[in-house]
Amino acid sequence: MTGINGAQQLLETARELGVRICFANPGTTELTLVHALDAVPEIRPVLGLFEGVCTGAADGYSRVSGQVALTLLHLGPGFANGIANLHNARRAGSPIINIIGDHATWHLPFDAPLTSDIDSLAKPVSKAVLYLDSPDTLRDDVVRAYDLAMSAPGAVVTLIAPTDVMDAAPATGQNPVAPQSRKVGFNEVSKEEIVRCAQSIPSDRECILLLGGNALGEAAIRAAGRIAEKTGARLLMESYPRIANLGGDLPRLERLAYFPQDVLAQLGDATVVLVGAKTPTSYFGYEGQPSQLVSEDRLVSLASESDACAEALEALIDHLPSAAVRTVRDLPAIPPRSAELSADDIIEELVVQLPEGAVISLEGSTLGAPFFRQAHRARRHRVMTNTGGAIGQGLPCAVGAALGAPDARVVALQSDGSAQYTLQSLWTMARERLPVTIIMASNHRYGILQTELKRADVDLAQPAIEKLTVLADPKTDWTALAAGYGVEAVRVTTPAEFSAALRRGLELDGPLLIQAELP
Amino acid sequence: MTGINGAQQLLETARELGVRICFANPGTTELTLVHALDAVPEIRPVLGLFEGVCTGAADGYSRVSGQVALTLLHLGPGFANGIANLHNARRAGSPIINIIGDHATWHLPFDAPLTSDIDSLAKPVSKAVLYLDSPDTLRDDVVRAYDLAMSAPGAVVTLIAPTDVMDAAPATGQNPVAPQSRKVGFNEVSKEEIVRCAQSIPSDRECILLLGGNALGEAAIRAAGRIAEKTGARLLMESYPRIANLGGDLPRLERLAYFPQDVLAQLGDATVVLVGAKTPTSYFGYEGQPSQLVSEDRLVSLASESDACAEALEALIDHLPSAAVRTVRDLPAIPPRSAELSADDIIEELVVQLPEGAVISLEGSTLGAPFFRQAHRARRHRVMTNTGGAIGQGLPCAVGAALGAPDARVVALQSDGSAQYTLQSLWTMARERLPVTIIMASNHRYGILQTELKRADVDLAQPAIEKLTVLADPKTDWTALAAGYGVEAVRVTTPAEFSAALRRGLELDGPLLIQAELP
Repeated sequence: MTGINGAQQLLETARELGVRICFANPGTTELTLVHALDAVPEIRPVLGLFEGVCTGAADGYSRVSGQVALTLLHLGPGFANGIANLHNARRAGSPIINIIGDHATWHLPFDAPLTSDIDSLAKPVSKAVLYLDSPDTLRDDVVRAYDLAMSAPGAVVTLIAPTDVMDAAPATGQNPVAPQSRKVGFNEVSKEEIVRCAQSIPSDRECILLLGGNALGEAAIRAAGRIAEKTGARLLMESYPRIANLGGDLPRLERLAYFPQDVLAQLGDATVVLVGAKTPTSYFGYEGQPSQLVSEDRLVSLASESDACAEALEALIDHLPSAAVRTVRDLPAIPPRSAELSADDIIEELVVQLPEGAVISLEGSTLGAPFFRQAHRARRHRVMTNTGGAIGQGLPCAVGAALGAPDARVVALQSDGSAQYTLQSLWTMARERLPVTIIMASNHRYGILQTELKRADVDLAQPAIEKLTVLADPKTDWTALAAGYGVEAVRVTTPAEFSAALRRGLELDGPLLIQAELP
Repeated sequence: MTGINGAQQLLETARELGVRICFANPGTTELTLVHALDAVPEIRPVLGLFEGVCTGAADGYSRVSGQVALTLLHLGPGFANGIANLHNARRAGSPIINIIGDHATWHLPFDAPLTSDIDSLAKPVSKAVLYLDSPDTLRDDVVRAYDLAMSAPGAVVTLIAPTDVMDAAPATGQNPVAPQSRKVGFNEVSKEEIVRCAQSIPSDRECILLLGGNALGEAAIRAAGRIAEKTGARLLMESYPRIANLGGDLPRLERLAYFPQDVLAQLGDATVVLVGAKTPTSYFGYEGQPSQLVSEDRLVSLASESDACAEALEALIDHLPSAAVRTVRDLPAIPPRSAELSADDIIEELVVQLPEGAVISLEGSTLGAPFFRQAHRARRHRVMTNTGGAIGQGLPCAVGAALGAPDARVVALQSDGSAQYTLQSLWTMARERLPVTIIMASNHRYGILQTELKRADVDLAQPAIEKLTVLADPKTDWTALAAGYGVEAVRVTTPAEFSAALRRGLELDGPLLIQAELP
């Protein structure tokens, strides 16, 4: 290629590496890159009206496809709007390359209004921040970013692209792009480590396999299931998986609880074998409760988040002794239906209607908690959760999933408080005609905060507490917000209405928002 | 006070210093502070559904009142959502103290999901980041933060508040709060500097007084006006003032242009005297154009942004020679009205209807450019602009202005693209019944990007460019979005409809959104 500029070089290199999508919210400093997208049409530009939509969508796309997604964001402040969902993406190990346009190198010293310390902003959510300081090394820089993003367990990498470097003509004859693996390169667990792990699992104590990260892929779950059958081990998954395969004929997984007391009760004195999961840790620190919820002497690590978990589990099977008795914990019974719509009603209907191969983007515990109790009864599906706790992930992640898995129906199980942070996602859903059904659990309050306050014996009926935890004045009308963005919407208050709405949503060519009024 | 905890100590100290408002979007790590707000009822909690609403509102509040506003934000990712508007607040020199809840100090090492490098995120927008590491030094820390926030020209300061320090009982007998000035302490310009400045203004060349920062207060503008009358100097204001007094009997100010070519033409070979304004600099770097738009030999500095500008201008008058001829540039004529609504029609009507003492929050050039050409014809008002270029400032700033200047009508002159970033502001306007009239310039495109591309001779009719600059598929229905948040709204397409809508908006007790469809 001759006569190209730096921006084209950057995108062309990404294309050669297999990148196919760019979630963008550009400004003036990104215009050369915007223009260059027309020279590299294989990379699809998807516009978000807010940067958090772009970064959350990139995360969702990467989770369902395993491929690198690009974002294109405007200088420090624009990038900052995308940090929350990059925090989640970092925790999820999602391969993402952010491209941030910056002032021309020679303009930076003049401290123009939009100048800021991009490096300081980007580092907390990036495995690496690369400043593209010359058009002549662009290819190498992009390859390096790609390699870092695809290194286990997957990572967020940020490129700072000054306008003059994007405008300039790169030197010809730069290094060709070597063929790259298009999969994250997980590390193999050695035979010795497998044996050591097997030996450190005591046979006289309950054993829990705690699956997380890539151990929630199909092959790993099936291998874990065989171990459970053979040894009587209990199968748990981490509380907030990046993407978990559930339902159909897959072995049932119990979800690790949220509050430390519940985790302690759930784990009892079992040995906990970590498979792609982190050590169970309290989500927040509570006075009088431990931060680490399993003592070191009861922890065994089979595979870290950077290790190939399915292979490790397969290898482990033969080294474990058979056990006659299998521990199965009863799962909670399904509560009876009432006339008023409840979260359980919603999940029960979803379990029945969810089509094979669907992807669920889940944010918030209103629907999340009951869903995970019933997910095993649904058809085979995948579910993405909020890995880092930065809220506003669910809707953008659904956008990305629909683009990364175009044959799948996508369902967003969404709490109304969290949805506010990135509601602009609805517009991108309408624009791209994405088959996303949004189930908006509308209880018009910050339920988790009220739960925490009640646990601390705080009276909720105090002015400031009410002001900062109750969202009922005014109540958000999500059907109107959806209409504002061109998304069809319906409000439901009974199980029957919800059932009909869900059926319609799952048939539509584009998005449908169901505002489910909950107590 | 005995028996209080760290959170109460923090807020009580802020109250003693005169702080009266807290813009909050709290999470679990802020609950002790939420609870403490009920113990310090003089500090009003105002909830935002998104952190950018809180930080933008704090900025607006500070600009109109000159007082410190608090924000209360949730850990690193929650804070990150507020960075864009803090970037603007930093450029505006707005006194703001951010309180960020953090994990308990003893929980931090466990790297729970929401753990992040808050310091790295906060530094780029903060004059100082203070980690509140002990309840016993809290009073001193808060006083220090307040002093820093109120030091000229005003600053953003960030406090990181770990839950265990907020929960703990502070030592009794901490230092009492010394009486503090409740005004930003601008520095006096010495007589010697005034004389030096007067002597360095050549009498044989046109002279421009470029007013910015606190030189756009009433006293400074009037003093500048007297200088202009005496010497024939031209009066300009910086392109993006934090808050400027305009209209009524105030001297007319010409606004510094945006594009470098226009600034160069506007300034000619005049001597430019900086009064609280920065050296004219190109907003972005353009190949072949200078970054600094006035050469050093034509620059004279009377007062920096940290100096007391009104006093400096008053002192300067007597040192300048009288001149017979006064340079007055013609301002553009008002274009004739057409049947279809135009930005000029909107501004013309606004100039007529704007009530005395109104505050305008202006974001975007669609309405901003024509407004500044006509503002001198309106009744006395104040106008806030986007000082840092991080978009999504206009609506939150209007929220803060309405709370900080409760007797004023607030008008938001808003571009539709920018409004998307913090549209959740509408909910807070409805909840707090704020008398804000929003004029939403709806052209359904990123006009500034199209302008830049056209200036670079790029064809706009290319797929990626169209995809990333045109917002017409689907068109956002702002009346529906407003309805979703409980805000009355009306769509207008003619000057007559706009006139009626504006009249209604300026009479309403609460907010009104006017969706003005523009070509």
